Amino acid sequence: MKEMNNKIKLSTEPYKGVRDFYPEDMAVQNYIFDVMRKTVESFGYSEYGASVLEPSELYRAKSGEEIVNEQTYTFKDKGERSVSLRPEMTPTVARMIAGKLKSFSFPLRWYSIQNLFRYEKPQRGRVREHWQLNADIFGVKNLNAEVEIISIASKIMENFGFKESDYEIRINSRKIINYILNDLYKLTPEVSKKVTRLIDKKSKITKAEFEKGIKEFIPKGTNEFLEILNSKNFEEFFTQLKTNAGASEGIVEIKDLMEQLEDLGITNVVFAQDLMRGFDYYTGIVFEIFDKSPENNRAVFGGGRYDELLSIFGKEVVPSVGFGMGDVVIKDMLETYNLLPKIAPAAKLYLCVMDEKLVPYAQDLAQKTRGAGISTTLDYSGKKVGDQIKYADKNKIPFIICIGDLEKKTGKLKIKELSTGKETETTEDGISSIIK
Amino acid sequence: MKEMNNKIKLSTEPYKGVRDFYPEDMAVQNYIFDVMRKTVESFGYSEYGASVLEPSELYRAKSGEEIVNEQTYTFKDKGERSVSLRPEMTPTVARMIAGKLKSFSFPLRWYSIQNLFRYEKPQRGRVREHWQLNADIFGVKNLNAEVEIISIASKIMENFGFKESDYEIRINSRKIINYILNDLYKLTPEVSKKVTRLIDKKSKITKAEFEKGIKEFIPKGTNEFLEILNSKNFEEFFTQLKTNAGASEGIVEIKDLMEQLEDLGITNVVFAQDLMRGFDYYTGIVFEIFDKSPENNRAVFGGGRYDELLSIFGKEVVPSVGFGMGDVVIKDMLETYNLLPKIAPAAKLYLCVMDEKLVPYAQDLAQKTRGAGISTTLDYSGKKVGDQIKYADKNKIPFIICIGDLEKKTGKLKIKELSTGKETETTEDGISSIIK
Repeated sequence: MKEMNNKIKLSTEPYKGVRDFYPEDMAVQNYIFDVMRKTVESFGYSEYGASVLEPSELYRAKSGEEIVNEQTYTFKDKGERSVSLRPEMTPTVARMIAGKLKSFSFPLRWYSIQNLFRYEKPQRGRVREHWQLNADIFGVKNLNAEVEIISIASKIMENFGFKESDYEIRINSRKIINYILNDLYKLTPEVSKKVTRLIDKKSKITKAEFEKGIKEFIPKGTNEFLEILNSKNFEEFFTQLKTNAGASEGIVEIKDLMEQLEDLGITNVVFAQDLMRGFDYYTGIVFEIFDKSPENNRAVFGGGRYDELLSIFGKEVVPSVGFGMGDVVIKDMLETYNLLPKIAPAAKLYLCVMDEKLVPYAQDLAQKTRGAGISTTLDYSGKKVGDQIKYADKNKIPFIICIGDLEKKTGKLKIKELSTGKETETTEDGISSIIK
Repeated sequence: MKEMNNKIKLSTEPYKGVRDFYPEDMAVQNYIFDVMRKTVESFGYSEYGASVLEPSELYRAKSGEEIVNEQTYTFKDKGERSVSLRPEMTPTVARMIAGKLKSFSFPLRWYSIQNLFRYEKPQRGRVREHWQLNADIFGVKNLNAEVEIISIASKIMENFGFKESDYEIRINSRKIINYILNDLYKLTPEVSKKVTRLIDKKSKITKAEFEKGIKEFIPKGTNEFLEILNSKNFEEFFTQLKTNAGASEGIVEIKDLMEQLEDLGITNVVFAQDLMRGFDYYTGIVFEIFDKSPENNRAVFGGGRYDELLSIFGKEVVPSVGFGMGDVVIKDMLETYNLLPKIAPAAKLYLCVMDEKLVPYAQDLAQKTRGAGISTTLDYSGKKVGDQIKYADKNKIPFIICIGDLEKKTGKLKIKELSTGKETETTEDGISSIIK
């Protein structure tokens, strides 16, 4: 066996494009996850999970060989199976639902907070691994599902402390673009798909590139099509459409959805006819939360209806609506709006031990305070009191008790609150009422 | 682009050797994590995290090329970097500590609950992916670190509901075996390492295989060596050792550690001279929690002191003690002892909607009850009341309110507790006091 020489220094850097979470980073991450979790649970959603390793076939079915090979982490295991690190959660949850379809009574309300991998160049807000909340409702055909899912998205934003004026909820329906492309412009399904993908990329390419692409796919009536796409609101869209818009199921849905959300007090919803939300599997309403701050001005997260995804498992259609909300972009937005809370310390009480021989007494006391629900840590070093207080302060531990011979003998303890310097004398039994 | 035909049915099975966590599984998993988390946090430990992807060099340094290639998921990325799915957490945390060494004030108390991958044949208790609590204290040279870490392990078992008589805490010191092999038997470091690994595998091979292996490495004094290894307790061990055992630092440590733990009320500690705990990086005390039930009768989890691991990053020695506790074996043990609690429902209140046109009223009411801290879900189907109650029952939702025209008009609501059938009349404002 070839062993490396221990004298060779290993790098302390993580793998390229992934993040280490030191305790201060993890605390922020946990805060974000807690808000997500509490909100979706208040709507009665149950958590599920799955491995980050999935058979690559799961993604090939909907995305095609090239995308899987180029944009995901895909490799062969020793049994020559092709395995991927999941790039998104929806195929996994669809697989799980399909796998136990007969045992469920619908609707199902499920959520997960899991990591996803994409093979792309690391850049701001686009790391190779990120964490994402996914919340989905399965088995509801009508708009009530969209209303619930968008209400959850809106409530998460509220629970983070955002105001409705900070962001927009942009909505569209795949049915509208399908109606325009298939019924009005009579494009083939293949060309329709290409136009949809081009519109999805619109904000990432130049105006000239975009218009050139559209002209290629829609050589007749290009300008009218661009005007429809550029209309600024629902009314202008109607005018541009120059047709009986009532014929489009999608338009009726959009109107209904906006009304229902407004009835629930969600008033920052806008129609965005150029909103596509990437994935091919969307079949109806799509939506996204869009940050209006000039600093970010971008999509924060989104989702939509995907009624036919379970067909890849040869199963019946299960109407499904959901969204995915990544940790990286929302963290940026929370920082921009200065909404991240102060980090709570790991311990509430620090026992400053003035002599090593007092450690057993301090250990015993710590057992009692932990039992009383106070997270407690103690010193083993016999460092000077001043240095121990500095340590407690650096670790933001709010209360300290110094343990010396006198304290052990008399049982009289002084609790010091570091932020104020205030000292209170008490006994072992009195500690918890002072700290709580 | 080659696209698969959607008519090909995909499998709904997860990748071989990994687990799907359906909500009922996830609830168990979350219960286990919650107990771990609350216990370590009561000792003032801070959570950290890192990506499951690590540069393979991190494992090659201590385990050698063969082990990395054969027992881990290792592959080349598109930049020809060798990447592994981490098989254990300790090298990662050592990397993170080494990376910011100068910024810390020691001791550090850190924990994580993360997934690990091993490439091995799936079998009971040995899946390819498992989740593990890791708790480590860095920067404490003396036995206080071991006392704290073993106290945490013991407290987790207590918080799960185990009695001290259900399991043993087996302890040993690598210093003892090193003393015997290096000082008494004068073996070379290389042969010592091989003997240590053989003892570690003892319970997995036959007695004859084991003795043959020992004879090969220790041709002179084989029987005496086997008698030392087979001694049943500390006193017998001393007798077998036939030497001034006081010379061994390890033996003094073991005695001290047992005394200190007993002072803290931990009385199920036993000396186990054949306990090695796998990893090469241990330098002192090692321990494991051993399930005494005839059904399992095996190691549940363990850890030890590894003072020199940071040297692989070219950093100074940081005294470190920690343990790793996997989810699979502890779940088995909790099931054996019938200690898993009932799963809490995802929602506390179900609004049974008797007519689709009442959905907006129900949505509005649900917003209010959620605001009052009651997780609430509602029906959109317009199913018969009986079917809706069945749904609530199947999902273990404890309370329901039926919403009809009368309820909407009068504001008088009846809350039914499904377990007892008891109905209470109230108004919107009275709901939360009844449910809580």
